[in-house]
Amino acid sequence: MEIEKYQIDAHNQELETEHQRRFDFAAAENPQVENIISKLIQFQIGIPSWALGTGGTRFGRFSGGGEPRSLEEKIEDIGLIHQLNQSSGAVSLHIPWDKTEDYEGVKRLANHHGLRFDAMNSNTFQDQPGQAHSYKFGSLQHVNKAVRKQAIAHNIEVIRQGVAFGSDALTVWLADGSCFPGQLNFRKAFQNTLESLEEIYAALPEKWKLFVEYKAFEPNFYSTTVGDWGQSLLFANKLGPKAYTLVDLGHHLPNANIEQIVSLLLMEGKLGGFHFNDSKYGDDDLTAGSMKPYQLFLIFNELIEGMDAKGIDHATGLGWMIDASHNVKDPLEDLLQSVEAIMLAYTQALLVDKEALAVAQQENDTVKCQEILQYAFRTDARAIVQEARLRSGGAAKPLALYRTLKVREKLIAARGAKTIATGL
Amino acid sequence: MEIEKYQIDAHNQELETEHQRRFDFAAAENPQVENIISKLIQFQIGIPSWALGTGGTRFGRFSGGGEPRSLEEKIEDIGLIHQLNQSSGAVSLHIPWDKTEDYEGVKRLANHHGLRFDAMNSNTFQDQPGQAHSYKFGSLQHVNKAVRKQAIAHNIEVIRQGVAFGSDALTVWLADGSCFPGQLNFRKAFQNTLESLEEIYAALPEKWKLFVEYKAFEPNFYSTTVGDWGQSLLFANKLGPKAYTLVDLGHHLPNANIEQIVSLLLMEGKLGGFHFNDSKYGDDDLTAGSMKPYQLFLIFNELIEGMDAKGIDHATGLGWMIDASHNVKDPLEDLLQSVEAIMLAYTQALLVDKEALAVAQQENDTVKCQEILQYAFRTDARAIVQEARLRSGGAAKPLALYRTLKVREKLIAARGAKTIATGL
Amino acid sequence: MEIEKYQIDAHNQELETEHQRRFDFAAAENPQVENIISKLIQFQIGIPSWALGTGGTRFGRFSGGGEPRSLEEKIEDIGLIHQLNQSSGAVSLHIPWDKTEDYEGVKRLANHHGLRFDAMNSNTFQDQPGQAHSYKFGSLQHVNKAVRKQAIAHNIEVIRQGVAFGSDALTVWLADGSCFPGQLNFRKAFQNTLESLEEIYAALPEKWKLFVEYKAFEPNFYSTTVGDWGQSLLFANKLGPKAYTLVDLGHHLPNANIEQIVSLLLMEGKLGGFHFNDSKYGDDDLTAGSMKPYQLFLIFNELIEGMDAKGIDHATGLGWMIDASHNVKDPLEDLLQSVEAIMLAYTQALLVDKEALAVAQQENDTVKCQEILQYAFRTDARAIVQEARLRSGGAAKPLALYRTLKVREKLIAARGAKTIATGL
Amino acid sequence: MEIEKYQIDAHNQELETEHQRRFDFAAAENPQVENIISKLIQFQIGIPSWALGTGGTRFGRFSGGGEPRSLEEKIEDIGLIHQLNQSSGAVSLHIPWDKTEDYEGVKRLANHHGLRFDAMNSNTFQDQPGQAHSYKFGSLQHVNKAVRKQAIAHNIEVIRQGVAFGSDALTVWLADGSCFPGQLNFRKAFQNTLESLEEIYAALPEKWKLFVEYKAFEPNFYSTTVGDWGQSLLFANKLGPKAYTLVDLGHHLPNANIEQIVSLLLMEGKLGGFHFNDSKYGDDDLTAGSMKPYQLFLIFNELIEGMDAKGIDHATGLGWMIDASHNVKDPLEDLLQSVEAIMLAYTQALLVDKEALAVAQQENDTVKCQEILQYAFRTDARAIVQEARLRSGGAAKPLALYRTLKVREKLIAARGAKTIATGL
Repeated sequence: MEIEKYQIDAHNQELETEHQRRFDFAAAENPQVENIISKLIQFQIGIPSWALGTGGTRFGRFSGGGEPRSLEEKIEDIGLIHQLNQSSGAVSLHIPWDKTEDYEGVKRLANHHGLRFDAMNSNTFQDQPGQAHSYKFGSLQHVNKAVRKQAIAHNIEVIRQGVAFGSDALTVWLADGSCFPGQLNFRKAFQNTLESLEEIYAALPEKWKLFVEYKAFEPNFYSTTVGDWGQSLLFANKLGPKAYTLVDLGHHLPNANIEQIVSLLLMEGKLGGFHFNDSKYGDDDLTAGSMKPYQLFLIFNELIEGMDAKGIDHATGLGWMIDASHNVKDPLEDLLQSVEAIMLAYTQALLVDKEALAVAQQENDTVKCQEILQYAFRTDARAIVQEARLRSGGAAKPLALYRTLKVREKLIAARGAKTIATGL
Repeated sequence: MEIEKYQIDAHNQELETEHQRRFDFAAAENPQVENIISKLIQFQIGIPSWALGTGGTRFGRFSGGGEPRSLEEKIEDIGLIHQLNQSSGAVSLHIPWDKTEDYEGVKRLANHHGLRFDAMNSNTFQDQPGQAHSYKFGSLQHVNKAVRKQAIAHNIEVIRQGVAFGSDALTVWLADGSCFPGQLNFRKAFQNTLESLEEIYAALPEKWKLFVEYKAFEPNFYSTTVGDWGQSLLFANKLGPKAYTLVDLGHHLPNANIEQIVSLLLMEGKLGGFHFNDSKYGDDDLTAGSMKPYQLFLIFNELIEGMDAKGIDHATGLGWMIDASHNVKDPLEDLLQSVEAIMLAYTQALLVDKEALAVAQQENDTVKCQEILQYAFRTDARAIVQEARLRSGGAAKPLALYRTLKVREKLIAARGAKTIATGL
Repeated sequence: MEIEKYQIDAHNQELETEHQRRFDFAAAENPQVENIISKLIQFQIGIPSWALGTGGTRFGRFSGGGEPRSLEEKIEDIGLIHQLNQSSGAVSLHIPWDKTEDYEGVKRLANHHGLRFDAMNSNTFQDQPGQAHSYKFGSLQHVNKAVRKQAIAHNIEVIRQGVAFGSDALTVWLADGSCFPGQLNFRKAFQNTLESLEEIYAALPEKWKLFVEYKAFEPNFYSTTVGDWGQSLLFANKLGPKAYTLVDLGHHLPNANIEQIVSLLLMEGKLGGFHFNDSKYGDDDLTAGSMKPYQLFLIFNELIEGMDAKGIDHATGLGWMIDASHNVKDPLEDLLQSVEAIMLAYTQALLVDKEALAVAQQENDTVKCQEILQYAFRTDARAIVQEARLRSGGAAKPLALYRTLKVREKLIAARGAKTIATGL
Repeated sequence: MEIEKYQIDAHNQELETEHQRRFDFAAAENPQVENIISKLIQFQIGIPSWALGTGGTRFGRFSGGGEPRSLEEKIEDIGLIHQLNQSSGAVSLHIPWDKTEDYEGVKRLANHHGLRFDAMNSNTFQDQPGQAHSYKFGSLQHVNKAVRKQAIAHNIEVIRQGVAFGSDALTVWLADGSCFPGQLNFRKAFQNTLESLEEIYAALPEKWKLFVEYKAFEPNFYSTTVGDWGQSLLFANKLGPKAYTLVDLGHHLPNANIEQIVSLLLMEGKLGGFHFNDSKYGDDDLTAGSMKPYQLFLIFNELIEGMDAKGIDHATGLGWMIDASHNVKDPLEDLLQSVEAIMLAYTQALLVDKEALAVAQQENDTVKCQEILQYAFRTDARAIVQEARLRSGGAAKPLALYRTLKVREKLIAARGAKTIATGL
């Protein structure tokens, strides 16, 4: 299904007076508002194809209804979100879950929805039917060269498919690691992984990037071979200029200072992309901004500071993507909430008075530093984000319109109540 | 399959000289060794029926081969373990995974293998085919009374089946909780859960116990309604004398002092049972003793101290069970390792000089307190455990014999390489 | 020093237009604003006498200047804060740091500043000169009865002094615990502590409350005898109706869900009071709201929900206090920031649409539950808090006026640059 | 005081029969025992000068008696330990706590006790009387160049003093960081620190090493500028071949896999040294091996694996040091316990069958990998360590002899009961 323009218009018109009052107030309070809005309009967050179905845990999965049954329906779903918020203009594919033979058809469909193809994702953490070797004990790290070769070949195949889609980056997330002390020789696992990555790196087309994602634990519960930003950075540095670190908010040990990691990776020129989500305990994959919205703001504050210092374009310099799981929410509603939270955090971070902050830092005026950050964070940024969305042709209140239009009900009617999308 | 007595005898004979030398040394070092051995012989650890197949994570599962295809084959597997170590003489069933109509046949089979039926486990964290209401938003806590009723009825049905098997306890582990702030009214969730448990409690036969298991997080990632020992104890106290707290080692927040919890629950007369496993990050469900063997020893030290103070029999006073997942190990080998680690920790804790420790504690002689504990922990207890096992008719080295006899290969030959046991 | 009324008036007048515009907008957005303001005016947060000097860590302390040299100067400092924000109308004393002979004089001074005396705090975690017995190995838990007697007597003496001041509560925070496995018999430590608390409890005047504060770790690094809310609740229940649990935000294990604890303690009728601060790693004692402002909001959301359900008055039903350490900030500025953050969180929690939330919870509409909470949290509440403060006679922007008036410089001039206040 | 040789001899003679029986058993079990003993005899662990007095927390310090009042008495104390265990043959000094003018006298004294001078430690986390600039807001990271210059000069002065003592390494531990979001520009803090370290590095004599120690948190509670191994490695790599990372066991986030870090740092040729201690919650600075002895063993397993692979001599290739705090123990007893635990872990790690482990790893035989490691860990290594100590002229049971000889009582008699050593 698609939403009709007149439906969005009617919705917007109804909310116009209220919005105008709020936006006028926000604009009066924040003189730089036009500059911010133009940045917001540019800013697009990639939606992973596997986030359109209900997620689960090892204890079970409780499916909703109307889940996309094909790559085409996934793109349709992202198209719906993008129609509503105009900030979700990219799709990130996962192979083999999103295999197709009809690249041109899929590209046309994505184009129709205003979507481009973000980083491709390979999968060597699950065994596929008919696969020669198992990844039970790892893939790129595996002690058996034949297994590594298989995993390398898969990654190269994913690049090939990415080229066909018009993507320009490969994200490698490895479950590789160990569950018990002694299981692994850490050094050899690192070296094997490095050699495997080197082969994949060598297969990258020009202008492609390789994102090396790290994760502290799960599904391995003793060690992970790309376990933290330090290890990812080691790999990225050894691989070369096309290799970067990718940060997923949920992939850290308790209490980690992620914003500092972001800042240092930008300093080193090695921050490649971001997986947004939120968490309280581990890789909980909750809606972005649902648990620690101040952390999200602080991360954006460092992103902006570091990108501006390096002259990196906010919208195109890094890969921005959501990576969440939707166990108890409608996936599309969850994604709408995530994108909204990200846009709000970005807006509030743009509102920070950088010059004043630099002065306060130089004077060790800790109290003022905090005041400056919290001044921005305490500002109600919703009208600004809404204004940017309206100017882009989106809906004033995407989630409200989604419900008013009974999108989910229509998807269920069209696809059935028992469909299950590929993914976790 | 079963192991023949002559096979065990031959194995033991081969290792006899070596063992005798080691045991003689151990006996000379530890005068109380006979007393300990008689306790070890009594001590039996329950094996959960769901721990006989390969475990998995939300990212996937890599099956081994020869997994049990039925309740009967599960009991056969536990029988094999018990034949080897003579310390696994109980089985813990999980409904509906272990549904049967042939209670008498299953009981005869268990009896043949020397196994009794430990606590029954209900399952309201997954939806079963044909179920009227979904547990997506909880079971005993659910805002909808009809869902609660369904979950209560299931628990009562599990009790009924447990009676048929000759079990005398019900373990209730609830996934109930919430994933997002605001999703749940904590107080109402608690009250609903309490009312539901009261109905289940009322259905308990005389001499039955109800174990209320707690868990900090997963599969819910914001709150769990029975989230820590304090909440579990609140429920147990409100329910009455048959209700107890059950401790699973992996169900705590980082750095929790589990041995102190054990001590306090024993003080309150409310420690009911134990799920052994090990972990580094969360509910990792690793082999007992594989990650923090000293913690396991300290827990046994408190168990013995508290049980002796209360006059609770070590072997029968509490429910002892393994609850682990075997993602990268042969499940039967994993269980053999777990039981061995538990027996060693129990032995070392029995070796602690309690009188000397009490004196050192009274004198605040922290250095000596540590010396006393570590004297026991640093003692090589393997020959003592082995002697107890030999006297019970078990194998000198269960794992070695398991491999020599090619048990797994035979199970695969008999059952096939692609079988998948029910469970997680 | 004191701030003159005309100074506050001038400051307020200068900011009047700006404030009026913002408040008008906020009032138009939030129809219940008058009701909220009247609650804000009532709400007072106690300031601990030990929070007026520079804090430190075991690695050192970097004093600022102008720290109060006496109890009178501490009250003067709190008076300054209260003049500015009109929300800090109580002082919490710590004995022996705040010993005096002149109760009447001190009470007159406090009265002059509009301050009442909140809970008294005893200290059995440090040895005082001339003390007969050391607390090196605990106080109320100590294996030696003479030490326990000394600690009990101290607490009773603190009650006596509290009566003289007109306080009506005693907070007992115990460092008691152990640093090494084996050092302590957990059960005996609990029993000794309970007996000691019973003696203190028996000495409570009518209408007094006893707050039993818990803490997970530090300064003991293996076990703490009142280590979590479960243990504190056990003590409070065994002691009787005057005994309550006190929650300090920084006293939990990593990732603890404090708001759930708050809800359950209110359900049990045993939540007595609160120590506000913020933290990332442990008991970091940072400015309230500086690290996890959303958590602070969620806690207030549960406080309001639970207190309203029980008919507990927000302003007087519980003990509200800041307990922070100011290592790199001017203590008075830090306290102004903390109070502001608390008032904002309280306001936002009051803004939550409780009826709609209850409906959404009943419908398991997780998405809407989150929307409702975040609608309130994303609202800019500053103008509302400012309006309440102005109506109470406080300053529009307390921190700004504090700086404009050069309060710290004047305190240094009056007291010297090298003064060191008693405290940590 | 010094212990007389005849006292050690008498003690050893008394325990000879018992020891011989145990050692004979151990030697029969472990054919490689002579090889291990020769390694143990070489292995020496540095004792920090600040670990000889009672430690404390921010909540207080409970002094013992007989603490060393001077550098000479500190060396005397270490001499006592070394006499007893013959494994503590190095001292690590801390400037300014250990300032002296009499380098030759101190060197003679150390030489008399068989001690060499390990890494020097600078102190820029505290302000010293008369110091021009404060380190309240950092030292090498400070926004003010004058402060950085002061801190650099101090480090260079420490090198100068180290040369006079005959040391050959400088350990830089920085408390630098921030307590609040916004306080610091992470990138500038990193760059300032790097520039400062470069100046210190330039002042290193030939053959000297610079150890860059990292720490996750405390005393700063938001960010630390050298916060994890990744950051330390970045600094070490940018500085040059003389710069290395130093690992302190207590300086990590919860659940960190320290042994993997050790392995990777060795792989990169950048592991410089080690601070041994143990912890449960944070930088608890407890006795080595008192909390997680298996972790200590696993770390040594990686150390040996990595050092052997690189051809690094165990005894001299890295800097080995204890860094603990003794809040509730006699410092000398605590150090004796720590050294014993370290020697046991080292011995058990030497007992690991490396070839078999390599094979099992190559076969992904996780069960056997664990068996191999735990076989070594479960071995009672005490008689082997004792034999090595006896051959070196030490005492059979250092702690027992320390108590028999009433060393602490004699130190108190000589120095007084109220002495307080410099340190934390």
